[in-house]
Amino acid sequence: MTTKRAPVARSPSAGIRGGIDLGGTKIQAVVVDAQHEVLGQARRPTPTQGGPADVVAAIADAMRAAAVAAGLQTSELAQVGVGSPGTVDPATGAVSSAKNLPGWTGSHPLGPQLGDQLGTPVALGNDVQVATDAEAALGAGRGYDSMLGVFWGTGVGGGLVLGGTPWIGRGGAGEIGHVVVKVGGARCPCGRRGCMEAYAGRNALEARARELHDKGEPTELFKIARKRGRERLTSGIWAAALERGDPLATKLLDRAVAMLGAGVASVDNILDVEVIILGGGLGVRLGQPFADRIAQAMAPHLFFSDRPPPVRVADLGDLGGAIGASLLA
Amino acid sequence: MTTKRAPVARSPSAGIRGGIDLGGTKIQAVVVDAQHEVLGQARRPTPTQGGPADVVAAIADAMRAAAVAAGLQTSELAQVGVGSPGTVDPATGAVSSAKNLPGWTGSHPLGPQLGDQLGTPVALGNDVQVATDAEAALGAGRGYDSMLGVFWGTGVGGGLVLGGTPWIGRGGAGEIGHVVVKVGGARCPCGRRGCMEAYAGRNALEARARELHDKGEPTELFKIARKRGRERLTSGIWAAALERGDPLATKLLDRAVAMLGAGVASVDNILDVEVIILGGGLGVRLGQPFADRIAQAMAPHLFFSDRPPPVRVADLGDLGGAIGASLLA
Repeated sequence: MTTKRAPVARSPSAGIRGGIDLGGTKIQAVVVDAQHEVLGQARRPTPTQGGPADVVAAIADAMRAAAVAAGLQTSELAQVGVGSPGTVDPATGAVSSAKNLPGWTGSHPLGPQLGDQLGTPVALGNDVQVATDAEAALGAGRGYDSMLGVFWGTGVGGGLVLGGTPWIGRGGAGEIGHVVVKVGGARCPCGRRGCMEAYAGRNALEARARELHDKGEPTELFKIARKRGRERLTSGIWAAALERGDPLATKLLDRAVAMLGAGVASVDNILDVEVIILGGGLGVRLGQPFADRIAQAMAPHLFFSDRPPPVRVADLGDLGGAIGASLLA
Repeated sequence: MTTKRAPVARSPSAGIRGGIDLGGTKIQAVVVDAQHEVLGQARRPTPTQGGPADVVAAIADAMRAAAVAAGLQTSELAQVGVGSPGTVDPATGAVSSAKNLPGWTGSHPLGPQLGDQLGTPVALGNDVQVATDAEAALGAGRGYDSMLGVFWGTGVGGGLVLGGTPWIGRGGAGEIGHVVVKVGGARCPCGRRGCMEAYAGRNALEARARELHDKGEPTELFKIARKRGRERLTSGIWAAALERGDPLATKLLDRAVAMLGAGVASVDNILDVEVIILGGGLGVRLGQPFADRIAQAMAPHLFFSDRPPPVRVADLGDLGGAIGASLLA
């Protein structure tokens, strides 16, 4: 671990920034110019073992690779923004309660440590909120005054823009994955029962698929994963299984859509937003046909059913989180 | 349709005002001075037959009686505010979709008609939102930047203050009663399934109590109602039955509390507010012991369970809605 901040080299192209989307599965890095055009990008798997130092090293590696792709060194970047899971303290750059990151117990100074390695200032924000802000500023949420971002991936995250401004509550708003859709229902990866994520999150979907496969339900899901050399069921694997008409994948995603419909409609009954943006690994991979299915699944639960909000797929796709992080002040 | 933040309820700079809380069961009228002190009040049952003209006449009658109690005529009031169910158009004074009011199909010019009868200007607002604003400005929500009002009565309504400002979305925010707590669950009075109100609203509780009583489950609920000359199970009747240890009342309210816990926690997982205010007929009648029970029922569902928001009973009690209406600009 370095103990000193490396000297910051200011380049003439000071508008060029880095952005990192730190996910439970992958780390996505981008370098963008002042017009938010992506000049370079790189992706690394999130370490599954080790601890915070390994995660910081992997982030730095991804950022360096993205910088190289853009023909730059990281010290030439005006700033690097990181959208992080867990609880983020933007003032100190510390991250705590990041359960999806290995060995991340307690609070760790992600921002300062990463800044040391990259030789440039680092700003931190919540991963889902920065992706929401990116869609609001540059993507499918442009022109709307209020939006709900639903990020359907490993888990299900949510971000809010209300009256043109992000709403983060006491710092923990947007946990749409943990809206209860069925009291006493399925166990969620978070340990609680009946959360929307327990039916719709990719981790929960995979666990349920394994369980039912072990009980003898036929599925190609794990065969496809083996062929692709994957240990986990990625969004692409789910999409491939669906395309082949896989019965288990179809059944589990039907249920996921039904529960997303109920949970998102519940939130809209409370907030009555202008637009709902569907992002996340599964949301982006399955695309507008699934956004339409979620809209259909919402319909029976919407209190003002005569004017449902549109459900649109995130414009910035897979890179939204990283681009959003690059916008951090 | 644009999303707007509702105008902030302002205290009258001068003058004595009237306020009306138009509920599905009763019409509550107050006359307040510039310091929001109640100078007079009156209550009338909401007509159960007839149409909009009968409702307007009953409101006018309640307001006149409150004015008499304050030693005034209604034409001496600077303004009368009305908190109305249904969809309110503050600009025209029209109310539509007020399902709990008799014969109220389509849109009716409640504001202008009432103004004619009272000889003073009438301002309209959403019933639940004005009650929320009253608690925020004068009641249990004072000093908080964000609050969720939960009005537990005939139905379950919700009101939001976020960042010190009411949030009404596209005009229909706050429908917390129709947050889905159990997909495929009990039929709600709204016609949908699994809504929180289907388990917790007084109409739903009464329907379920009748059904189980008819099937032979012992209860004093209807005996108490007969003794009191009531056709409906009022909040006071539920409270009396609970005090006697009535098994059916206990069972149904236990379930209501469990479902309120899940639904309110779901909303807090999304909004992460500073305080939750419990109002409404049942909320105010059952009081802080039930607010504490709802807080307990929320605990297993709260994502940030280490810092739950306090759940406080509405300070302004039964008169909150009418006082809130008197604040309408």
